[in-house]
Amino acid sequence: MTGPDATPPAYPATPRTVPTRHRERAAYDRASVHAILDEAFLCHLGFVRDGAPVVLPTLYARVGERLYVHGSTGSRPVRMGASDPGLAVCLTVTHVDALILARSAFHHSLNYRSVVVHGTAHRVTEAEEVRTALDAIVDQAVPGRSADSRPANARELAATAVLRLDLAEVSAKVRTGGPADDPEDAGLPYWTGTVPLVRGYGAPVPADDLDPSVALPDYLSAL
Amino acid sequence: MTGPDATPPAYPATPRTVPTRHRERAAYDRASVHAILDEAFLCHLGFVRDGAPVVLPTLYARVGERLYVHGSTGSRPVRMGASDPGLAVCLTVTHVDALILARSAFHHSLNYRSVVVHGTAHRVTEAEEVRTALDAIVDQAVPGRSADSRPANARELAATAVLRLDLAEVSAKVRTGGPADDPEDAGLPYWTGTVPLVRGYGAPVPADDLDPSVALPDYLSAL
Repeated sequence: MTGPDATPPAYPATPRTVPTRHRERAAYDRASVHAILDEAFLCHLGFVRDGAPVVLPTLYARVGERLYVHGSTGSRPVRMGASDPGLAVCLTVTHVDALILARSAFHHSLNYRSVVVHGTAHRVTEAEEVRTALDAIVDQAVPGRSADSRPANARELAATAVLRLDLAEVSAKVRTGGPADDPEDAGLPYWTGTVPLVRGYGAPVPADDLDPSVALPDYLSAL
Repeated sequence: MTGPDATPPAYPATPRTVPTRHRERAAYDRASVHAILDEAFLCHLGFVRDGAPVVLPTLYARVGERLYVHGSTGSRPVRMGASDPGLAVCLTVTHVDALILARSAFHHSLNYRSVVVHGTAHRVTEAEEVRTALDAIVDQAVPGRSADSRPANARELAATAVLRLDLAEVSAKVRTGGPADDPEDAGLPYWTGTVPLVRGYGAPVPADDLDPSVALPDYLSAL
């Protein structure tokens, strides 16, 4: 665990991963970053096109120290990521956990957990890695699902591209706790506290043409 | 309603608001765009810094055909938005409504509603518009809250900057409905259907120092 090849426990802080404000909310340890990434399946992927920023919501998966996103071979980021230098991206994942209602409007806030990854995305060309990534993207949203669906065939693989982004320049930012009003506001007559935001799953709705003999799989009833 | 000053019912499509794939999912009408924006309070704001993309989660509000975000006067996007040409941004809002589980891995999808706004953000300098924007940002998350909290004082206003982004080059993208498997996959023995994702509010938790005589306001019990 202490040899030269051991994975360091934290990502190095860089000028663009150190926030200008609330530095105490930043975290660089792999465990915190991985936990935030593993709880989500949708990211917001930013790239630059003709000098202007573009931010698109897209599915992703984490496999070790790599993130994968996929897209049509004709999509803009995929075509740009296939170029020799790759595609400069910023991939952001955010959980909103609670509304924080302070007595002062100024101190209103959110409890949240976010991860921001900076780096260069490259198109994956090795067939085995493409398959691993596509399975991981399905399993990121519904663990166990990729093994219980028809894998991509040659035509589908030809239409799909995978981009890889290594976890190297990455940080988490986390706010927890209740409101933090200024002491002189303590006597103001406004309700103050935390409103938790909850997420969950509704009951699965079978497709109209599902054979009634196909039971709901365990990985769905467990959600 | 048909005079020269009437607001057109739709945003014009532009090269960067027409998607390369699934054009049938794109919408440009104001009602659809406003509804998606009004149901959220967190966006992912993209801008370019030193040639590379940056995507940060942040609160926003819609007031008519303007979006507002706020930040510390020292924050990077605020400082860049205060410059003469403003700050080129892409502001994206996404709701994920359901997981779509097809029989084929390839046709797995999400039901979602997203809005992508391209444009140039400018710092708001007029004091009345700053106040309107700050109130709107609080009310976007909790309607009615801004009137039931202490407004920002001069010191807080001096520390806070507001950026404005006009709704001009904007599109929505929406997927609804169930899985869309290829006909030849209909007999495969995999469960297929829709898993709704639900969002909601937990019971409000009063701050430790809240005077017990302060009742939970109606706008919170209504959530």
